[in-house]
Amino acid sequence: MKLLRVGPSGGERPAVLAEDGRLLDLSSVTADIDGAFLASGGVERARSAVGAGLLPELNRSQGPAAGRIGAPVARPGKVVCIGLNYRDHAEETGAAIPPRPVVFMKDPGTVVGPHDRVLIPRQSVKTDWEVELAVVIGRRARYLASPEEALRVVAGYAVSNDVSEREFQLEFSGQWDLGKSCETFNPLGPWLVTADEVPDVRGLGLRLSVNGRARQDGCTKDMIFDVGHVVWYLSQYLVLEPGDVINTGTPAGVALGLPDHPYLRAGDVVELSIDGLGSQRQIFEQA
Amino acid sequence: MKLLRVGPSGGERPAVLAEDGRLLDLSSVTADIDGAFLASGGVERARSAVGAGLLPELNRSQGPAAGRIGAPVARPGKVVCIGLNYRDHAEETGAAIPPRPVVFMKDPGTVVGPHDRVLIPRQSVKTDWEVELAVVIGRRARYLASPEEALRVVAGYAVSNDVSEREFQLEFSGQWDLGKSCETFNPLGPWLVTADEVPDVRGLGLRLSVNGRARQDGCTKDMIFDVGHVVWYLSQYLVLEPGDVINTGTPAGVALGLPDHPYLRAGDVVELSIDGLGSQRQIFEQA
Repeated sequence: MKLLRVGPSGGERPAVLAEDGRLLDLSSVTADIDGAFLASGGVERARSAVGAGLLPELNRSQGPAAGRIGAPVARPGKVVCIGLNYRDHAEETGAAIPPRPVVFMKDPGTVVGPHDRVLIPRQSVKTDWEVELAVVIGRRARYLASPEEALRVVAGYAVSNDVSEREFQLEFSGQWDLGKSCETFNPLGPWLVTADEVPDVRGLGLRLSVNGRARQDGCTKDMIFDVGHVVWYLSQYLVLEPGDVINTGTPAGVALGLPDHPYLRAGDVVELSIDGLGSQRQIFEQA
Repeated sequence: MKLLRVGPSGGERPAVLAEDGRLLDLSSVTADIDGAFLASGGVERARSAVGAGLLPELNRSQGPAAGRIGAPVARPGKVVCIGLNYRDHAEETGAAIPPRPVVFMKDPGTVVGPHDRVLIPRQSVKTDWEVELAVVIGRRARYLASPEEALRVVAGYAVSNDVSEREFQLEFSGQWDLGKSCETFNPLGPWLVTADEVPDVRGLGLRLSVNGRARQDGCTKDMIFDVGHVVWYLSQYLVLEPGDVINTGTPAGVALGLPDHPYLRAGDVVELSIDGLGSQRQIFEQA
């Protein structure tokens, strides 16, 4: 099932993208798609309502931003990121293959819709892109026993652009979070694809282009630590809550790793997609 | 004014500690002390209600955890931390004095009450303490013009224990967040002291003891980057929202910096206080 949130920022309505392409209004099942919805069996309730034909089609024509798609999860409690998790990306940035997942965080307030504008921070000259597979947690998890058990706490997957300002991230201090947490720096969506519809999360192609030019073209099979390992690993050290988002790392092809470092400028258009998870398109603007 | 939240975890009621020591029920003014309360002039509404004698005394004797004090802000959207922000602490850890604030993040889910138990993670052998001045943001802030303007978006201050697992923080990767984000790792409170009651935030003594033995005894005058600078700096790169918490760094005296590295063990009692902001006491337990 594909769950999404449609409408103006802060006023999104929950919806389901049906298999026939219709957009169904999920408001009768839940007020929003968030951690509480995921934790309380909301996905199964939504599935039942769709199956029973109970959901009306969503009228997308109301209001100025009615056609907008928001992030598929409201107010994630945290956004955890895994750095250098593809061999080719570690190599392009000159970093060693990490012996353990490299864990950092983004301000969860950076999460925006998949087609929202992204702001290039004032003073920024090194704003960069990163297509990533996002994992959305469905159940509270701590000290999971194994990567196999870890996969059972995953609600689903989404496309994520882990936008990064390389000077703020790498040159201001040894800690990366500042350059990962600028306003609008985490487009997410268009939808949350429930885990049952992603049978092989280790075989998903990821692609990103800038102004129509292909820049990233990877596959999740090249992850150093796969989804089960990442979720299991994190649960040994922190508590994962329903609605939390994990950005699982990016393959090669970011501006930082390209010979001419073609960082983003106002007006640039970034398009990204992951097999089966949909696509995003952002126009970058000056903050 | 001293704002606090009293009651069992997840069921706290908002309250004011009156100047005569009585605890007043703030439930008629707001459902909770959170970002929305702070952003909507809640502090002034609370002040008016106290002044008009409208608030009943809080009955603390109801229920098993009725006397518990929670964190003074519900659900902070993010917890931003400044590392190595006291000269003596930078020296004790062998780090250089940073030219810019070192910024990292804690999982906001780690925030607990000031007297709650703190869990030593499984596999942990290096759980450490850090008394810190916490800043609570009262108004949305981006691209602030100056440190002086920055002080005007501060709602108030609180005591914070930025509990840290040094192996997870420093030895697993170059990124610190994992060792800062373990379950229960951020006792906060007992109260939010509004900024008007802290006339000189640059002259506050901070103290911490373990099992009655003094370990930290510092003063905010020794901060490398003061509160105004930190808030102004952060606002150049990320958006500060009402209810966000900033841990502004710790003075010398942590286990990492002591010759015998006396890391915390189950049963250890940590007590900490900051001038005018109250005190905390935690018993450490094995997770």
